[in-house]
Amino acid sequence: MHNPFMAEALAQAWKAYEIGEVPVGAVIVHDGSILCSAHNLRETDKQAVAHAELLAIQAACHKLGRWRLDDCDLYVTLEPCSMCAGAIINSRMKSVYFGAFDAKAGACGSVVDLLKPGLFNHAPVVYAGIMEDECEKPLKDFFKELR
Amino acid sequence: MHNPFMAEALAQAWKAYEIGEVPVGAVIVHDGSILCSAHNLRETDKQAVAHAELLAIQAACHKLGRWRLDDCDLYVTLEPCSMCAGAIINSRMKSVYFGAFDAKAGACGSVVDLLKPGLFNHAPVVYAGIMEDECEKPLKDFFKELR
Repeated sequence: MHNPFMAEALAQAWKAYEIGEVPVGAVIVHDGSILCSAHNLRETDKQAVAHAELLAIQAACHKLGRWRLDDCDLYVTLEPCSMCAGAIINSRMKSVYFGAFDAKAGACGSVVDLLKPGLFNHAPVVYAGIMEDECEKPLKDFFKELR
Repeated sequence: MHNPFMAEALAQAWKAYEIGEVPVGAVIVHDGSILCSAHNLRETDKQAVAHAELLAIQAACHKLGRWRLDDCDLYVTLEPCSMCAGAIINSRMKSVYFGAFDAKAGACGSVVDLLKPGLFNHAPVVYAGIMEDECEKPLKDFFKELR
């Protein structure tokens, strides 16, 4: 089923694809509209923490002028890693919608589940597999070309 | 036992204490000397991701011009949370030395152990409880004053 916010996250993932980054995109929604969007910039910025979700959370805090994002939703094309799941917890994000699953680094159910209610002092509502096939496409294309 | 790098991380924690931040400090060591240091700035910067370790990793990548910190060591006064443990994994940090344990949010053994060898594609060597009592002191003082 089409989701306009995930579609924008996917457009961000394709932007990452075009510049040779592992293609992951994210958007943060506040008051029913897109507050900010980002894509992976690890190679471009030579920066270990420049994942799409972390950049989007940084931008959202900056825009709203507060660290607490408990009235925001995150849409991301790939299951967040430990760092990004931790940033989701630290920002008290209301909900997380992710597309593809990450069997090797996914920290929202695949390898570990850091967003499990009761584990830490905050757990967002998690919706997994949103537009999963479309979200997998840039990743599959990217890794096929690498080989 | 005194450790000069942890002593500098501790000095950073006291800087955070002075400005009303949860007092945690970190330093990154490269080629036997301090490359960069940071302390928690969540309230000051109104930024959910502004933990000491994450800021130090960002600064180290920026200084070295690469995302891979596999020849660097991180010293931090408190056990890293999920976000920071994930940033440690993503930056391929060689070793992590931490002081106090964090029973509520610690992701290096206390609540979960994200740095356990074999769990993800990288696991640093972890040294826990370095100058533990000294590292606990600013945190204990801070939370005592809050109550």
